[in-house]
Amino acid sequence: MDKILRVNLNDLTTRVEEVPSEWAGLGGRALTSTIVAKEVPPTCHALGPNNKLVFAPGLLSGTASSNSGRLSAGAKSPLTGGIKESNVGGTAAQMFARLRIHALIIEGMPKGDGWYSLRINKEGVSIQEETGLLGLGNFAVIDALQSLLGKKTGVIVIGPVGEMRLSSANISVKDPSGKIRSHGRGGLGAVMGSKRIKFISIDDEGAPGIQIADPEKFKAASRVFTKALMDHPVSGQGLPTYGTNVLVNILHEAGGLPTRNFTYGQFDGHEQICGETMHDTIVARGGKPRHGCHAGCVIQCSQVYNDKDGQYLTSGFEYETIWGLGANCLIKELDDIAQADSVMDDLGIDSIETAVAFGVAMEAGLLPWGDGKEVVRILRDEIGKGTALGRVIGSGAGAVGRTYGVTRVPVVKNQAIPAYDPRSVKGIGITYCTSPMGADHTAGYTIATNILNVGGQVDPLKKDGQIELSRNLQIATAAIDSTGMCIFIAFPALDIPECLPALIDMINARFGASLTGDDVVNLGKTILKTERAFNLAAGLTAADDRLPEFFKSDPVAPHQAVWDFTNEEIDAFWDF
Amino acid sequence: MDKILRVNLNDLTTRVEEVPSEWAGLGGRALTSTIVAKEVPPTCHALGPNNKLVFAPGLLSGTASSNSGRLSAGAKSPLTGGIKESNVGGTAAQMFARLRIHALIIEGMPKGDGWYSLRINKEGVSIQEETGLLGLGNFAVIDALQSLLGKKTGVIVIGPVGEMRLSSANISVKDPSGKIRSHGRGGLGAVMGSKRIKFISIDDEGAPGIQIADPEKFKAASRVFTKALMDHPVSGQGLPTYGTNVLVNILHEAGGLPTRNFTYGQFDGHEQICGETMHDTIVARGGKPRHGCHAGCVIQCSQVYNDKDGQYLTSGFEYETIWGLGANCLIKELDDIAQADSVMDDLGIDSIETAVAFGVAMEAGLLPWGDGKEVVRILRDEIGKGTALGRVIGSGAGAVGRTYGVTRVPVVKNQAIPAYDPRSVKGIGITYCTSPMGADHTAGYTIATNILNVGGQVDPLKKDGQIELSRNLQIATAAIDSTGMCIFIAFPALDIPECLPALIDMINARFGASLTGDDVVNLGKTILKTERAFNLAAGLTAADDRLPEFFKSDPVAPHQAVWDFTNEEIDAFWDF
Repeated sequence: MDKILRVNLNDLTTRVEEVPSEWAGLGGRALTSTIVAKEVPPTCHALGPNNKLVFAPGLLSGTASSNSGRLSAGAKSPLTGGIKESNVGGTAAQMFARLRIHALIIEGMPKGDGWYSLRINKEGVSIQEETGLLGLGNFAVIDALQSLLGKKTGVIVIGPVGEMRLSSANISVKDPSGKIRSHGRGGLGAVMGSKRIKFISIDDEGAPGIQIADPEKFKAASRVFTKALMDHPVSGQGLPTYGTNVLVNILHEAGGLPTRNFTYGQFDGHEQICGETMHDTIVARGGKPRHGCHAGCVIQCSQVYNDKDGQYLTSGFEYETIWGLGANCLIKELDDIAQADSVMDDLGIDSIETAVAFGVAMEAGLLPWGDGKEVVRILRDEIGKGTALGRVIGSGAGAVGRTYGVTRVPVVKNQAIPAYDPRSVKGIGITYCTSPMGADHTAGYTIATNILNVGGQVDPLKKDGQIELSRNLQIATAAIDSTGMCIFIAFPALDIPECLPALIDMINARFGASLTGDDVVNLGKTILKTERAFNLAAGLTAADDRLPEFFKSDPVAPHQAVWDFTNEEIDAFWDF
Repeated sequence: MDKILRVNLNDLTTRVEEVPSEWAGLGGRALTSTIVAKEVPPTCHALGPNNKLVFAPGLLSGTASSNSGRLSAGAKSPLTGGIKESNVGGTAAQMFARLRIHALIIEGMPKGDGWYSLRINKEGVSIQEETGLLGLGNFAVIDALQSLLGKKTGVIVIGPVGEMRLSSANISVKDPSGKIRSHGRGGLGAVMGSKRIKFISIDDEGAPGIQIADPEKFKAASRVFTKALMDHPVSGQGLPTYGTNVLVNILHEAGGLPTRNFTYGQFDGHEQICGETMHDTIVARGGKPRHGCHAGCVIQCSQVYNDKDGQYLTSGFEYETIWGLGANCLIKELDDIAQADSVMDDLGIDSIETAVAFGVAMEAGLLPWGDGKEVVRILRDEIGKGTALGRVIGSGAGAVGRTYGVTRVPVVKNQAIPAYDPRSVKGIGITYCTSPMGADHTAGYTIATNILNVGGQVDPLKKDGQIELSRNLQIATAAIDSTGMCIFIAFPALDIPECLPALIDMINARFGASLTGDDVVNLGKTILKTERAFNLAAGLTAADDRLPEFFKSDPVAPHQAVWDFTNEEIDAFWDF
């Protein structure tokens, strides 16, 4: 029997509950958003006792399907003030699924000042007092837990930034190589910190494992699905070879690479930080150009990046981080960015929010443009130690802007805008505006169609078709985020006719269900509407579905493009 | 002819405009809110080029009427994100009125990094580049301008905090003794700083002066009005004798004196900081227990507070400041609070927002409870110098809470809750929730009726009658804020039958009009609805008309009272 684990920190009790029938067919984002919408008062303080932190594996997590090992986390976000779902690779989703944990709900807040950890195993979940690992970075915690509990232990952990409850704090999950992947966005680590849970360990010894209703059908569909992933040029070649950082040169070419805190659309240092350079550097230094963030990944867009002495420096080194500190902060030294990436991983802080916050800080004159060494120093000595400056930067781009009177602050719903300029890639601007998550490229990745010509072509510089494109992708993504699938399956799903039916076949084979494509679309719509209803009840309005003013008034080179959607056009997104 | 002065900083031009007919009958808050609502896009960045800063004297400013010399300032607030009006004594309102300046509108934003000042005289307004007085505190700027332009010059000025565009920055106005009074709340000083105007000087030499349509009728009404002010025990005795600080002991007795960041309702150090102790200290040290903030004030609730050596320390030393650093921060030394008050005046920072921010900072462990010396040090060395810590505290209570993960943060619409606990004085809680200004006691001062039994009696601990009380007072206050009158005229207006008709008679005699009491009520309603419409368009909702959660969950001693209004009850405020 699947189960819900519920941890109540008000009285330090735990319960194993049956899965209510209305939650039984939901996983991942569909489940976390449904639970948050049902159980969290929308106007509560995100760091107070009435918020809840919910983890849920996807519908296909734990199966042998490729790329299905993602875990969703959900809560009211301390960054946006709205609902938040963020999903991650690593080993936890598959362990949850094998333990038949449908969701873990953490609620309440401990009395006193003590900290705790949770231990999950086949019996359920228990609460321990925690003192020894407090204040440590993510890597030290994982090392300690692997020594204590064995190499196979699953770990969900917050770093010092989560302990400080800063709005950029993320939650990290151990990956198969003992490194981490993170629920990056929206400050979910601060919510975990507010509940004073330093880490969750997972032991799946004796787990009952996954039941597949129709194993043969599942296998057949899985083969078709995996072949589609391997056949598509983006998921089969581009991402495996260069990682997500393949995008630096592509966005530079398109004039959509936000540069110097979103002042320009091209970066003259693009060659030094691009995926091609990174690939060659990794190979020359004996690193690994390919690495999967979870078992069963066939794309393997992660990597191991070594320093110039051939020593491990970082992994999970993503385009958005490299763009954010590179083009957006004018840092041309990839090694400095890698160093910063490693420190951010260890501190447990969202590298997108933080990189954009550094761009605003540079605009405010807090540090020189392009000074990667100073970025690393501020990360370690200011954010890591919780100085006032560190806390401001660690509270995100919006906080830096408010504290230093900067008006060029690229945020929507107070969440930093990622690596694609919405003036020159207009579809992604619609996603930034309308996603209930705040500015988030993954919520409806129009770059696929605007720039990569996946799923057709929609001119990035024109308004035509962008609302529909973003809407369709956001609906599809909400559904995909519920399956445990990596977002990159969208590339073959958009281009290869067999891919999406195979995904639906896998879900049907897993549960003995008979979902159609329409059912999946309806699921996506329901998720978006549930999330938006939470946000409206929390006090967000259409006025929060807007880009900052400067995108309208300041044209961006080289296209001299401005953001020219009217409010009415943006609001038409919700007509479905 | 009355005129509008308009300053456009985009191109450094100024214009003298006729007063549009729809603005002719408006003054003070009615006029600033009408202009802001008409000309400022509600979703603009408050510190960007699309916000406007508007000054307007009241309808009776410049006349011989008692207590009519208040100046309104309005803009979109960087603190609340909504519309803001804040009014002030000092000499500027009467100079504006004598110069027949109906309003001054400052719009746009200068190119480059230069700073400017404005010079107003009978010809209009001109723009000067400013370098010499940048970075100086308010007192030094006023001294310098008096040397340069003569003792009689009017001055409107921002201190270093306004230059830094921090959300607690105020705008100060020279008073008759060369000291200052401030447009305190909502960060209007940051708006002036964003426009890079350090000060405005006013020369009323050759001013045409006020025209009174019916001088005899005006004089007769003015006599009745002044007598009412003098006859009422609060405006005629309590305030003149003890200043606003008469309230410390009264609120302590009522259990409504927020103590230790709104943890308790009584302060064991109340005797050391109360109005009675302050009065005796002032007298013993050769200070002045009475002092008017503008010519024509018959209440004179201000004072001159000397240090123990008999040297001038501060004036305009208000209950809210003394409560905020005293009871709310547990500081028992009145001299420390006076020192802090003087530094805040010089820096140009709202003493309510800042005192409450210190309470949250103490809760976060940033400085010890009750440490007045450290408060003064932080004001001078951190806020005054713009360190990161200083900027966080100078950005207000909400910013401190967000940056340090504190959940007991007494704000509404991100503006700090003043000196009356809404759990034990429930009427004021309705005002805090619903005022378009954010938490603001002056917007509808139910303390009059809840605590002082002025205008009847409404039990502060019960819900009955509070919505109606707050609504009636907010409507009346919006109208009074449009006349140039001090809010303290509300005491006789509520209790002495002749007072309000005399006020209306003065307005009619001044303008040759025939307004009735209903017209005044309708004006108040229109102002509130105009302001609320701006806020809704800016993205605020009913969810912003709420007190923080902890007022519901944490009972406050000695009455163990909680905030128990439902959302529906609060929202019924707007049914008019």
